[in-house]
Amino acid sequence: MSFFQFTPAFANPQGSPIRELFPYLSRPGMISLAGGYPSPSLFDQEGLAAAAAQAMATGATALQYGATEGSPALREQLAAQCQARGIRCSAGDVLVTTGSQQGFDLLLRVLIQPGDTVCVETPAYPATLAALRQAGARILSTPVDGDGLDVEALAAMLAALPVAERPKLLYTVPNFSNPCGTLLVQQRRERLVQLALQYGFVVVEDDPYGELAFTDARPAPVYAAAQQQVGEGENPVVYLSSLSKTVAPGLRVGWMVADPAVLRRCTVAKQTNDLCTSPLAQAVAASYLQSGRYGQAVAKACAEYLRRMLALTQGLKARLGDLVQFVQPAGGMFVWMTFDARIDPQKLFDAAVAAHVIFVPGKAFYADNANLHSMRLSFAAPDVAQIGQAVDRLTEAFDKAK
Amino acid sequence: MSFFQFTPAFANPQGSPIRELFPYLSRPGMISLAGGYPSPSLFDQEGLAAAAAQAMATGATALQYGATEGSPALREQLAAQCQARGIRCSAGDVLVTTGSQQGFDLLLRVLIQPGDTVCVETPAYPATLAALRQAGARILSTPVDGDGLDVEALAAMLAALPVAERPKLLYTVPNFSNPCGTLLVQQRRERLVQLALQYGFVVVEDDPYGELAFTDARPAPVYAAAQQQVGEGENPVVYLSSLSKTVAPGLRVGWMVADPAVLRRCTVAKQTNDLCTSPLAQAVAASYLQSGRYGQAVAKACAEYLRRMLALTQGLKARLGDLVQFVQPAGGMFVWMTFDARIDPQKLFDAAVAAHVIFVPGKAFYADNANLHSMRLSFAAPDVAQIGQAVDRLTEAFDKAK
Repeated sequence: MSFFQFTPAFANPQGSPIRELFPYLSRPGMISLAGGYPSPSLFDQEGLAAAAAQAMATGATALQYGATEGSPALREQLAAQCQARGIRCSAGDVLVTTGSQQGFDLLLRVLIQPGDTVCVETPAYPATLAALRQAGARILSTPVDGDGLDVEALAAMLAALPVAERPKLLYTVPNFSNPCGTLLVQQRRERLVQLALQYGFVVVEDDPYGELAFTDARPAPVYAAAQQQVGEGENPVVYLSSLSKTVAPGLRVGWMVADPAVLRRCTVAKQTNDLCTSPLAQAVAASYLQSGRYGQAVAKACAEYLRRMLALTQGLKARLGDLVQFVQPAGGMFVWMTFDARIDPQKLFDAAVAAHVIFVPGKAFYADNANLHSMRLSFAAPDVAQIGQAVDRLTEAFDKAK
Repeated sequence: MSFFQFTPAFANPQGSPIRELFPYLSRPGMISLAGGYPSPSLFDQEGLAAAAAQAMATGATALQYGATEGSPALREQLAAQCQARGIRCSAGDVLVTTGSQQGFDLLLRVLIQPGDTVCVETPAYPATLAALRQAGARILSTPVDGDGLDVEALAAMLAALPVAERPKLLYTVPNFSNPCGTLLVQQRRERLVQLALQYGFVVVEDDPYGELAFTDARPAPVYAAAQQQVGEGENPVVYLSSLSKTVAPGLRVGWMVADPAVLRRCTVAKQTNDLCTSPLAQAVAASYLQSGRYGQAVAKACAEYLRRMLALTQGLKARLGDLVQFVQPAGGMFVWMTFDARIDPQKLFDAAVAAHVIFVPGKAFYADNANLHSMRLSFAAPDVAQIGQAVDRLTEAFDKAK
């Protein structure tokens, strides 16, 4: 028997299903459509180096402990981003977090006890599922379609639940979701807020991809839709976002906008978690956002991701035809693809690895009842030429697995 | 009734008792002996700016997501630090954390359930007590004296406990503890390991201050004492440390060395907490440690903190005499001072604030049964001249409160 006696959630811990793919990634010549990483070629290295130099030059602030809420300069910049997206807020409504992952983690601490029910749009981001399992939550999978979370299916599910089993929280990525790439339409955003108010659950709106839009027609955040409905009352939505997909993940800078009661408790929880997000990283982020280079860098990223998305989806359609189904995303980094039920998923995965292309098998994105005939394809990291090759190799794998 | 229903630990959350002093700190002319912040004048800003420039110049690694365990280069450097302190380890035994605060938080997730007993040397670091309260732990205060944790008192306490109430964890800062400044003597380190093995509890050895020693006579870490006793067997000690007190808190870089079973689970927990510690901050830290400037910077800090410590303790002894009692620390940043029981603590605090000097009242460092006639004085931030003034003002406050 081991000396160590771990809590039940960690007795036999499973690592991330995506990280399990790492050994394949290092094989020579492998093209990866698996990662959720932004393209390093799109990082504004020059602008960020200048921001880092400025952060180091302006006294000791970047090197000292900082307020748990975040640096005033960065909170100003992040509040301005939220305003541009349609949210009414000021710097005082922003809590800087160590990536938006920490934002979700803090929310679970202050809102969820073991046994509580949490609704998750499914398929879902695996780290969200892992965090919920660790928190001991009961996960209720909520379906999505090409327009995002299926709010009428959710309404029917809620109406049928006994009061004791009603969710305390619902997690959604309304803009270009991971893994589906779908955009939640405006009418559904409003309906989701109504349901949250009616049934008393908190909506966690995770929005790391919203800025990576291929068109201008993007609805305002669910948080803003809630502001319309509740006025000055308590807002049932918690808005999470991040600079990881738009500036650089290496900063680990995310943020939360929420009702003051939620924000205050998450701040207390953050005090015992990491005291504050790296003041160095915060100073670099604030300097960079102040420099005015952000808008151009994001526009460049959107244009390049659009090219890559088109290369992938047009290639897949031309080569695989009716064998596969997907909705062409209007932004973000992902295509969710299902395939003919007669194809064996394991055989397909093995053939793909043998052909030197890799994707994330769909089962990673389900808490239960996985659709095994599915996969997530990311078009963010490989360039257009590599995506062309990847489509060739995927076609070869489908041929072998048929 | 609020829309939000928080978990019991966050129904009525209390912020940090030290943060409650912030409003006083901003008063003009205030000298603070309250903070636990290192002196910004001792940051090696030139060396760190060079490290930041190098980190930004060497490709996109500092800007991309990184492995949850930490960057290979930084883990190498931190393992080398541990080896220099007497721990047998390699890079693979190191988990980089977002400050050592996160290391403790991850341990609580994987080891502690609500109702579990945790021993804490008392008086104790307030964020440790807050983290334990949030985790729902039953806190058992363990006494300290001038030689650190009183292990024989602990042994007697353990022998008297029913099996069901035995601790799962014990928290100690053996080197120049916060708040007491004491050093745990070698014989007690060995005895503590014996007790851990006998009674089956994990020892959390938090060591942020060990490098700030005023003499060379520092015992090896408790972790190393355990390695002596268990050989290749499971080590009951988890070692936490940090660059916050030696390089810069703004990096938020700490680390954990532990048995592989513990390290693996903390890595899984970290995946859902913040994915990885800022790769930018890690790259700056690794470059700085590789630059070879660390040794000289720490030696300079030790010399300056020694001067400040002597100014404070000699001043207090000369001016307050028998009214106060303290043990002169052999390193670190703190003096723990108790005072004559006839002096009213609140009156003393108010008089000190009126005289423009501030300290942390001792009650912040207790889970229960606080000795109200105590205070923590930090000599790290003010310079020698300011410390002289602070002693004058404290003397004035004692005169008024007598």
